[in-house]
Amino acid sequence: MPCEGARVNDQQSIQTVFVANRGEIALRIIRACRRLGLRVVCGFSEADRGAPYLDLADDAICIGPAAASKSYLNIPAVIQAAQILNADLVHPGYGFLSENAAFAEAVANAGMVLIGPKADVMRRMGGKVRAKAAMIAAGVPCVPGPDSTLPDDLEAVKAIADDIGYPVILKAAGGGGGRGMRIVRTPDDLAEAAMLTAQEATRFFGNPDIYMEKFLERPRHVEIQIIADSHGHAIWLGDRDCSMQRRHQKLIEEAPAPEIDRSLIAEVGERCAASCREIGYVGAGTFEFLYEDGQFYFIEMNTRIQVEHPVTELVTGLDIVAMQIDVARGGRLPVTQDQITTTGHAIECRINAEDPETFAPSPGRITSMHLPGGPGIRVDTHMVAGAEVPAHYDSMIAKVIAFGATRTEALSRAQTALAELRIAGVKSNAALHDQLLSEPGFVAGGVSIHHFEQWLAARETANA
Amino acid sequence: MPCEGARVNDQQSIQTVFVANRGEIALRIIRACRRLGLRVVCGFSEADRGAPYLDLADDAICIGPAAASKSYLNIPAVIQAAQILNADLVHPGYGFLSENAAFAEAVANAGMVLIGPKADVMRRMGGKVRAKAAMIAAGVPCVPGPDSTLPDDLEAVKAIADDIGYPVILKAAGGGGGRGMRIVRTPDDLAEAAMLTAQEATRFFGNPDIYMEKFLERPRHVEIQIIADSHGHAIWLGDRDCSMQRRHQKLIEEAPAPEIDRSLIAEVGERCAASCREIGYVGAGTFEFLYEDGQFYFIEMNTRIQVEHPVTELVTGLDIVAMQIDVARGGRLPVTQDQITTTGHAIECRINAEDPETFAPSPGRITSMHLPGGPGIRVDTHMVAGAEVPAHYDSMIAKVIAFGATRTEALSRAQTALAELRIAGVKSNAALHDQLLSEPGFVAGGVSIHHFEQWLAARETANA
Repeated sequence: MPCEGARVNDQQSIQTVFVANRGEIALRIIRACRRLGLRVVCGFSEADRGAPYLDLADDAICIGPAAASKSYLNIPAVIQAAQILNADLVHPGYGFLSENAAFAEAVANAGMVLIGPKADVMRRMGGKVRAKAAMIAAGVPCVPGPDSTLPDDLEAVKAIADDIGYPVILKAAGGGGGRGMRIVRTPDDLAEAAMLTAQEATRFFGNPDIYMEKFLERPRHVEIQIIADSHGHAIWLGDRDCSMQRRHQKLIEEAPAPEIDRSLIAEVGERCAASCREIGYVGAGTFEFLYEDGQFYFIEMNTRIQVEHPVTELVTGLDIVAMQIDVARGGRLPVTQDQITTTGHAIECRINAEDPETFAPSPGRITSMHLPGGPGIRVDTHMVAGAEVPAHYDSMIAKVIAFGATRTEALSRAQTALAELRIAGVKSNAALHDQLLSEPGFVAGGVSIHHFEQWLAARETANA
Repeated sequence: MPCEGARVNDQQSIQTVFVANRGEIALRIIRACRRLGLRVVCGFSEADRGAPYLDLADDAICIGPAAASKSYLNIPAVIQAAQILNADLVHPGYGFLSENAAFAEAVANAGMVLIGPKADVMRRMGGKVRAKAAMIAAGVPCVPGPDSTLPDDLEAVKAIADDIGYPVILKAAGGGGGRGMRIVRTPDDLAEAAMLTAQEATRFFGNPDIYMEKFLERPRHVEIQIIADSHGHAIWLGDRDCSMQRRHQKLIEEAPAPEIDRSLIAEVGERCAASCREIGYVGAGTFEFLYEDGQFYFIEMNTRIQVEHPVTELVTGLDIVAMQIDVARGGRLPVTQDQITTTGHAIECRINAEDPETFAPSPGRITSMHLPGGPGIRVDTHMVAGAEVPAHYDSMIAKVIAFGATRTEALSRAQTALAELRIAGVKSNAALHDQLLSEPGFVAGGVSIHHFEQWLAARETANA
């Protein structure tokens, strides 16, 4: 495979990045490595053998069978592949091993550099309770509730709930993805709910610890992108609204978040950047918040690049993945906080290969594909006509991203782009996105994280 | 074919645009029509039957055989097709009939609206000598030389040349495309040169009239994009440098033009906009200039959209094709001159299906294609894997356009994009572009229109 990115004459100085991921984020990382003049190599599973995006890497080897647990989640196989391909750095992308502290340690022990924070920082910020304690210390606003797991004593638990005020929510301390959570609206329900949640926490995450927070009725999901280098500089790159979700999976993301006081966001953004400096964070990351009634409540930090990073790239003009790789190599941030300005508005629609009615995955071979383009349109995809959507992984096959001078223009461009998109061979949710982009609540801006499910329920009632 | 663009409920109010062109500009017009909620239909030649971009139109019919003279240049066939498809407006794109005043008249006579200036304005600005007279009247700087064709009297011609100062250049008044031109360096050569140029002018353009201008030794090609509505508003949208040319065919274009005093460009831009107001120009257009030693010299106006319009779109954030359609429909310009700001830098590489050594066209079927993407990359193309590049037309198959905060970043992103581009089945000039983007003269900025041919000659000498 060719190596056009390697423009530096001194071959000794060219470092190699191993991509410990697949699909569109693998291609995104390949592009960033090319920009930086780095060699870039991939590991792939049997299901991804022959995938067209692999041809764009300098080299690629198989890391195991289709099942993610045997390939993309198999730490020894990934480490071995990176070593065989002479990698200096390892990019974990998102999902898979991207927030796995044991993987971060294994990369370091193998003499390579993980493109992400150190294992100890990852552990500290990856656990929700420990992250919350760190955030409270840094002055980042959190959802009311203790910064520790709940005691066994039921009376003590009741006192905590009384203190927070009902409704409250119980969550598995080691959990995520919407599992191991339970809303409690009255003191009478608390004992049983705590027992059931602890049982689920044990079953799903192997850890019975649970914690309690105030339950917000109609919050929005708003997040802050940060990036920090190893020289003590940390900045925030604006905010995103990702409230349009189905079962905690984001569907549409936008930057900036509409209908929120910009000075409030700036205050929260500054605190996020400050907390990164305090904990010695290095890399890109996201502080996720719930937002309700003019208040931000920290929920968790993602210590990795996110699917929705392109909307921030479009409004800031920055290449976040390239910056992320650069800081992992010891580079200094190329911009200061004063130099960060956001212009216009960007909206991203996640195009999944799935049945638009049942949301069941629709794997298979893409027989033909036409991607939208023109002013303000960016499509991040690893798919081409003839490529296969494997059944084993996430069903996202493309991100259609629209930029406009205003939110209205970005919405309009996104709709035009969706109408132009043609995918044959697998089903997709493109038409669903088209409906959502003209849905009055979304058009007005500022919907809650429950909006999509409510809209879906209303649609089903109407169709019944 | 579907009609997703038609979102307006009242079907009566939806106008139809007929695309009197093909290829990437046809797709670009289709996209703009979708953005505006208009119905869009195409005429195609036998050679373009089944081309994938036609599926994106609401309807399309054949207008004749492959030879352009029998289809895309056949005025009665184009008019008839537009009428059959119930068009209200006709978009001529670039090339073909886009600057043909007889076509503009035929469109008007058929009760449709041409997306472009009226026939009389097109005639006035399309002829170089008449355009020059109009520009001098409007205070737009021109190449020294009389604003009329040369007299028959040789002594009078010599006096004009003495007045301008040698070297001078003789040009066919009705010509273009680099033919019917002759440089004269001494008075002794003037008589024979004038006779030969008049003979060529007759042979190539059916008109013996010639005119004389000062010959510039190392000029750059710099142009100003304007747009004007039918309500008396005309604005300029920044400048472009298109000096990298081969035989008067632009290869690389960028915005803004590097290494030129911005206040000087603003002054020229204002005069271009003023002259549009004076002549009642409606539509998009470009004032082309030579630039040498801090001076601008008007050469001609293009009364149509240009291939290189995307670089201006990227630095201004505007959709020039949509604006062009909108003003043709009687719409007012959505922005004032004060609201036009340019940000960053954009570079466009014209990817042609041609032999990179001989420049001979390389028509055929594209067997596979991977387009570059990621931050700052836009690709305008009508091609997909499996599509045919016909032998009958221009060999341009894609425009790879890179935006960056600085010229350096745009150049670097363009190079990364070219390295990612994969086209199989036809030859392309992508590797040539890659060489040019790192050529020291071009990297420094401000090369002359002779730079490419000189570079090519030097390369050939080195290879010999």
